[in-house]
Amino acid sequence: MYTYDYLFDFTKNAFERMGCSEEDSHVIAEVFLAAEIRGHASHGMLRLKDYYELWKAGRINVKPNVRIVHESPSTAVIDGDNAVGMVAAKKSMLTAIGKAEKAGTGWVATRNSNHFGIAGYYSMMALKHDMIGICLTNANPLVAPTFSVSRMMGTNPIAVAIPAEKQPPFVADFATTPIARGKLAVAEKKGEKVAFGFVQDKTGNPSDDPTILKSGGSMLTLGGDRIHGSHKGYCLSAIVDIFSAVFSGANFGPFVPPSVAYLPVLDKKVGEGTGHFFGAMRIDAFQTAGEFKAKMDEWLTTFRSSKPAEDQERVLIPGDPEREAEARIMKEGISIVPAIKNDLMQIANELNLKFE
Amino acid sequence: MYTYDYLFDFTKNAFERMGCSEEDSHVIAEVFLAAEIRGHASHGMLRLKDYYELWKAGRINVKPNVRIVHESPSTAVIDGDNAVGMVAAKKSMLTAIGKAEKAGTGWVATRNSNHFGIAGYYSMMALKHDMIGICLTNANPLVAPTFSVSRMMGTNPIAVAIPAEKQPPFVADFATTPIARGKLAVAEKKGEKVAFGFVQDKTGNPSDDPTILKSGGSMLTLGGDRIHGSHKGYCLSAIVDIFSAVFSGANFGPFVPPSVAYLPVLDKKVGEGTGHFFGAMRIDAFQTAGEFKAKMDEWLTTFRSSKPAEDQERVLIPGDPEREAEARIMKEGISIVPAIKNDLMQIANELNLKFE
Repeated sequence: MYTYDYLFDFTKNAFERMGCSEEDSHVIAEVFLAAEIRGHASHGMLRLKDYYELWKAGRINVKPNVRIVHESPSTAVIDGDNAVGMVAAKKSMLTAIGKAEKAGTGWVATRNSNHFGIAGYYSMMALKHDMIGICLTNANPLVAPTFSVSRMMGTNPIAVAIPAEKQPPFVADFATTPIARGKLAVAEKKGEKVAFGFVQDKTGNPSDDPTILKSGGSMLTLGGDRIHGSHKGYCLSAIVDIFSAVFSGANFGPFVPPSVAYLPVLDKKVGEGTGHFFGAMRIDAFQTAGEFKAKMDEWLTTFRSSKPAEDQERVLIPGDPEREAEARIMKEGISIVPAIKNDLMQIANELNLKFE
Repeated sequence: MYTYDYLFDFTKNAFERMGCSEEDSHVIAEVFLAAEIRGHASHGMLRLKDYYELWKAGRINVKPNVRIVHESPSTAVIDGDNAVGMVAAKKSMLTAIGKAEKAGTGWVATRNSNHFGIAGYYSMMALKHDMIGICLTNANPLVAPTFSVSRMMGTNPIAVAIPAEKQPPFVADFATTPIARGKLAVAEKKGEKVAFGFVQDKTGNPSDDPTILKSGGSMLTLGGDRIHGSHKGYCLSAIVDIFSAVFSGANFGPFVPPSVAYLPVLDKKVGEGTGHFFGAMRIDAFQTAGEFKAKMDEWLTTFRSSKPAEDQERVLIPGDPEREAEARIMKEGISIVPAIKNDLMQIANELNLKFE
């Protein structure tokens, strides 16, 4: 088990050694650790190697000039200058919050960025300002539209954080596919099949093979098949892609650059880098903050008291599992599996750091 | 078969006879007919009886004072004064568009409203202004959160319309459940079962019985079950509810008033009427309108050229089926089934109009 501080310091130091500023490295480490403690290890230390390899391949800019290139009272477009995703994303969300302070709401589309970790981190930045936070991003194409076998979209997540008064906040952070890609990797390592409804083979037939992406298969959108509403998951994923990339001028859909160095950069570009979209909405632009938060408390307690199904103990509110994971993990420590530990030791060695 | 104009004039006259102004009746008829020609008869003439019965029961205000009660440069809260939903909704969307003209984006939450027809109508109002349009609404509680058997949410739809240049616009308009409630009614009338994944019984067991809502059952969220991501559909439906009702001060979740007169008004209220949420985003608040629309053309043609699955002819863009339905129905006419025709003749008779 590792402490938060040990992994935070290691991550921060690693990015500083790669050439990032102290301030940027701090932000990056914070988002990596937020994933770990919220129970989403798929976006935590596991990914450090991907970022490191991208840096070694010269595919990421550690001295970026992240800047606003277009704006209106409630909107901005930000050019991330090919920064580590967290650096462009945090600045973008802060810009959205600043716009919201004046105009009631703030909306920022960001281009020329890279993988930014967990979307929930940025949406939650709004909470302490008594704002609702929203974050979307497009990602590597793995997912097929309804009726198609082409990998046209990423798992394109949506995160929305909504403040309350006495109750913990509502925090939704979810891919627009039934599962995250990491679940396929886990099943593959265990030699297990997956449920039908997650992936299809290269001709569009249902599949339970977690390795099917290697033989031309694709992931399905939320809903799974047409009869169960996969066209709605396709709409959601497409909206995330358009907001992230067409608003900003980033690459959309099948042209989103890979977030791992072992996949080549595509020849065709339709924009700059990966795209994100951020929103901040001041709650007192609608109701007084007191009224709004009291009503959210009532909403949350009402939903929490829904009757559980026969085989369930309780009904959850979006954000409950992550908040409970955080309380547990901050107490018990963060576990790192041997394969990832080896990666981190290797990186430490090459960067003249220590990881043990 | 009926012509658009015949049904439009009848609907408009019917609402005028109920006491609505000529202008309001025009708006209401336009939304009813938009549902018919876009192939969503479930929200068309079929519903006229529900509105009529609500009016007869004195549960709707035909002389409303729809007004802004709170605002910021990019936001407003509107009190619908218990208007027919279309009247409050159209004014709200126009307010959002007006805010967007000045602030780049405009966001309006509306309380004290009623059922407003198809959400897509309002989102599409933004298109001719070179804006993206967004519309959400909460609705009668029929849907259970993941792990629950309580009916806490409506089928809470999301509509997003995005303009393009030469290509037709992207128009997504979908319930956050696998199916609309109307499909259960159709299966029931035909004496058929439905697929698993749409509804559950009162203890939370899977069911294929389309009448299960009458014996304590509930509808499921998009995703169907936990393993296939129903918690993501629950997040979406909850977000629609909070944006529509907590921002505006309307009734949320299980307290949303019924949109039919045969269900009683609830004793407990947590706000005023039904809630909606509207957004308008000026595309040139992000990119020049020309750049944006050219990029959307490229997005649309890229996705339209996705490879179809083996058993499919083509891959659709959100909005394609409705646009094609409109072209066909405007040519061939609108068909009204005998049961609905009888309802309309009855209403005509009571209002001293003619329907034949």
